[in-house]
Amino acid sequence: MAIGVKASHISFVAHFLGIVGAIMVLIWCISFRGGLAWEATNKNLIFNLHPVLMLIGLIIIGGEAIMSYKCLPLKKPEKKLIHLVLHAIALILGIIGIYTAFKFHNESNIANLYSLHSWLGIGVISLYGIQWLYGFVVFFYPGGTTAIRSESLPWHVLFGIFVYVLAVATATLGYLEKLTFLESSGLAKYGSEAFLVNFTAIVTILYGTFVIVTILSQAPPEDEYSYSAI
Amino acid sequence: MAIGVKASHISFVAHFLGIVGAIMVLIWCISFRGGLAWEATNKNLIFNLHPVLMLIGLIIIGGEAIMSYKCLPLKKPEKKLIHLVLHAIALILGIIGIYTAFKFHNESNIANLYSLHSWLGIGVISLYGIQWLYGFVVFFYPGGTTAIRSESLPWHVLFGIFVYVLAVATATLGYLEKLTFLESSGLAKYGSEAFLVNFTAIVTILYGTFVIVTILSQAPPEDEYSYSAI
Ligand code: HEM
Ligand code: HEM
Repeated sequence: MAIGVKASHISFVAHFLGIVGAIMVLIWCISFRGGLAWEATNKNLIFNLHPVLMLIGLIIIGGEAIMSYKCLPLKKPEKKLIHLVLHAIALILGIIGIYTAFKFHNESNIANLYSLHSWLGIGVISLYGIQWLYGFVVFFYPGGTTAIRSESLPWHVLFGIFVYVLAVATATLGYLEKLTFLESSGLAKYGSEAFLVNFTAIVTILYGTFVIVTILSQAPPEDEYSYSAI
Repeated sequence: MAIGVKASHISFVAHFLGIVGAIMVLIWCISFRGGLAWEATNKNLIFNLHPVLMLIGLIIIGGEAIMSYKCLPLKKPEKKLIHLVLHAIALILGIIGIYTAFKFHNESNIANLYSLHSWLGIGVISLYGIQWLYGFVVFFYPGGTTAIRSESLPWHVLFGIFVYVLAVATATLGYLEKLTFLESSGLAKYGSEAFLVNFTAIVTILYGTFVIVTILSQAPPEDEYSYSAI
């Protein structure tokens, strides 16, 4: 059920939203929350790496990886390579980003893995890893038979969309949770920081939406069959 | 890109998850949170109506409305009527459910509409209402021309999926927010209530997932063309 708009047009909106979201999360963590650090006595600076790496890494680069297959004016083998390399970068930044959340919790003596956000987060990163590995083995190296590839493709697309939507939802939960903590310790509910965080979450959701709409749109004519020809 | 499984089989899993989710939210609000009430001196009992109405109304009945079109062994006009009536019920229960959240806030002197959850909630219910009205006018009464109907259909499906996924995400944010409030006031992070709420959220997400997979699956043969024949 492809919709009658050009994938590359929709993807421009997505790229724009991705840049805006990246800037917003950086302004939040650097100007409002004191900056980013790997080692620090102020443990909050370690935490600040978490939203930055998850949004820019897993969500934005992961979204670009998804769209690259549909939008780039390149041959299939090149697009496949870009797709899998971008997803590998997204996955690695996501793993480091989750590590920073644990590092912050451990160094501040806060319990691990109690929240819905953290449970879904572990689910997302595991499924993302499984999806990447399966895709690599079946579509890249060593590569499955033609029958296995064409059987797998719709499931790869469907499961990929599922994991990506779940990742966006998990990020949204993260913003809400962090802001709720800050508001419980006195941050103004209608202040500029609260608005910045809520709008960063909304930009994240819109970015995710445009990523999905891009892959439901029409691919450029020269590779009209990219999705079925594997 | 329909997947090679039968819609009615997948929908059984969804029905089951829907029943489980409804029971879980009732156990939470009645046994753990003290019960449901429209008028009460304990204002928390008014709040408790909110998750119950949003989950059972908007999410579960709304999901059944979506699946009904694809799964019921009936003729198109009957399915259309069931689809629109179930969505109307979901919408009305959703509006009453949002009203109870405002009623609770107003009677407890808590600010309205400060959280990401509440902003998205207003977005969801507005878009749900617009989607229902547009569908009613174009596909039911007075009904658009054949050209308008077939132009509108993929957008109706796509926008409907978008609004539904956003509703599930909003509900998930609601559970996390409420549980975070309770944990800030001392509720055990690994206690049975925390687990109940987190698992209710996970069942909600799984229900939403199976609703979407149902409509991507194969309709029964007698109405194989239900989605394109309008
Ligand atoms: C898809 C992206 C994300 C994933 C997969 C993810 C995953 C995780 C995981 C696994 C933890 C648990 C760490 C522990 O228990 O020690 C965590 C903690 C946390 N994350 Fe995220 N995160 C994501 C995005 C975000 C974003 C954008 C924010 C925004 C501020 C955020 C805020 C938090 C907070 C406040 C915590 C600590 C409280 C808790 O454990 O829930 N996360 N995250
Ligand atoms: C899609 C379903 C849902 C929608 C559309 C929705 C919508 C809303 C709206 C519009 C408000 C704002 C009320 C006000 O500002 O006075 C609100 C408040 C609230 N809702 Fe929901 N809700 C949903 C599901 C849930 C669920 C399942 C829970 C679980 C407990 C929940 C928990 C809360 C809480 C704690 C508040 C008060 C704090 C706040 O304003 O964010 N909601 N909801």
